[in-house]
Amino acid sequence: MDNFAARLSQRADEIAGLLRELLAGEPLPGEIGRPERLVAAMRHGVLNGGKRLRPFLVIETASMLDGPAQTAIRAAAALECVHCYSLIHDDLPAMDDDDLRRGQPTVHRAYDEATAILAGDALLTLAFDILADPKTHDDPAIRSALVLALARASGVGGMAGGQMLDLAAEHRKLDALEIGTMQAMKTGALIRCACEMGAIAASADATGAAALRRFGELAGKAFQLADDILDVTQSTAALGKQAAKDEGRGKATLVSLLGIEKSRQATAALLAEALDALAPFGDRAIWLKEAARYIIGRDH
Amino acid sequence: MDNFAARLSQRADEIAGLLRELLAGEPLPGEIGRPERLVAAMRHGVLNGGKRLRPFLVIETASMLDGPAQTAIRAAAALECVHCYSLIHDDLPAMDDDDLRRGQPTVHRAYDEATAILAGDALLTLAFDILADPKTHDDPAIRSALVLALARASGVGGMAGGQMLDLAAEHRKLDALEIGTMQAMKTGALIRCACEMGAIAASADATGAAALRRFGELAGKAFQLADDILDVTQSTAALGKQAAKDEGRGKATLVSLLGIEKSRQATAALLAEALDALAPFGDRAIWLKEAARYIIGRDH
Repeated sequence: MDNFAARLSQRADEIAGLLRELLAGEPLPGEIGRPERLVAAMRHGVLNGGKRLRPFLVIETASMLDGPAQTAIRAAAALECVHCYSLIHDDLPAMDDDDLRRGQPTVHRAYDEATAILAGDALLTLAFDILADPKTHDDPAIRSALVLALARASGVGGMAGGQMLDLAAEHRKLDALEIGTMQAMKTGALIRCACEMGAIAASADATGAAALRRFGELAGKAFQLADDILDVTQSTAALGKQAAKDEGRGKATLVSLLGIEKSRQATAALLAEALDALAPFGDRAIWLKEAARYIIGRDH
Repeated sequence: MDNFAARLSQRADEIAGLLRELLAGEPLPGEIGRPERLVAAMRHGVLNGGKRLRPFLVIETASMLDGPAQTAIRAAAALECVHCYSLIHDDLPAMDDDDLRRGQPTVHRAYDEATAILAGDALLTLAFDILADPKTHDDPAIRSALVLALARASGVGGMAGGQMLDLAAEHRKLDALEIGTMQAMKTGALIRCACEMGAIAASADATGAAALRRFGELAGKAFQLADDILDVTQSTAALGKQAAKDEGRGKATLVSLLGIEKSRQATAALLAEALDALAPFGDRAIWLKEAARYIIGRDH
């Protein structure tokens, strides 16, 4: 295992540990009770051995800028709750109708649809609970800024809106520009937000924050393109989810428009741009650079 | 029209106006785009002529304590987004499977299930966006406290958890204690939170905030009992939604356990206790007192 893989895995363990603690079942002050079945479904959706790439970006961004570790890991856990809620809802029969996620039954298959809807709702809500909790940072301006960044990236103008556009793509072929917008919203917004939240957690100055948002945006584009390439080139077993899904549904992707070779070139160009955005941080950006390389080089 | 009805209606117009503005369709800074269909479904779920009782409680609580009007109305709008998202999701086929809401087609009937799920998700997210936005209050401590109060009241330990318990009640008759917990979570938490958010918006001291939470808790219980009585005594046409729903599903309610006469007495006792909790505020609590009387006296 190389250094990056070890570090990614260590961060993933830290995040899983915190998420496990947050979903331990005991009601927090102000909560009336925590129904066991709902907590179990939330845990199923969140503690599933994910790579925790988005949390990694939050934590390494904050760590690069000497931000407080506690703020970074809680922000990362909140972001992961949002990511996992979106997977639970996207997998529902009314949406992408998936039975498998990371090789395990999806939440509505392991439980039922109603429970899956509520588990997603409760995880989304928990994300903002985590961020607004004074445990996240002494300064409420930072807590509030984290809430605003995450809400804006994941709502109607970000991730949820992107999923809406993606569903529409089943009825009408999108052109390259429309696909770009859809992907920037559906996947890109949250990856960019990871870097933005890391910057907020570390009280980055405006120039630093802008550079990190730019990096996050490019990394998000590269991630999605790499994902589309994997969807075409890999087997269902290797992916741990249904392969060739987009093609099967007649959905256009950038890969289907550009072809695999050109898509690989575009991904490499995005990587170069992303690394360039990190130039102001010099050697301190090593883990973010490694993350970007990993994003385009991964095989599942 | 009496004074209370006029005031409730005026506040409802103010809230609807702000919600309309927040869902006008133009992307906010940091948003990439706002898909038209998703915005339309969110508007359908939110701009439906509701009585806006919860927002009324936020605004009148804050106004009683001379809190800033802008903070109060934005907090109220956020709370209403959460209430309306919960109705959209509760109405889904996998949940309560309702076709009508306030006499109109539910969101999944007017659009489709996937759009309804996303509209709910996006409204929940918007609620936290509204609260964390600096427009809500200059002091980030207040914004952050509003986020935390709303998240905790509506997540796994509050409203979403309550809906989970309510669904379980279709398979197993709950006893009076369990019904009390379920209702405190499903309906009570958000009504209590309305008063709590009003107190936060107005920077209430600890004693005042505790009295208002107590009032909200009692008002919430009275509200639910009154609702259960209406479900038994009123027609579908008068309610604008399916009547005798609980009975039809074999669900126990406090009314089915106590009988209508005892339920009416219990509601009156809750009202007296709720009014008592407002004693420290003297005559200034007139609109909150009127609201409590309205809650148990309404006919739909």
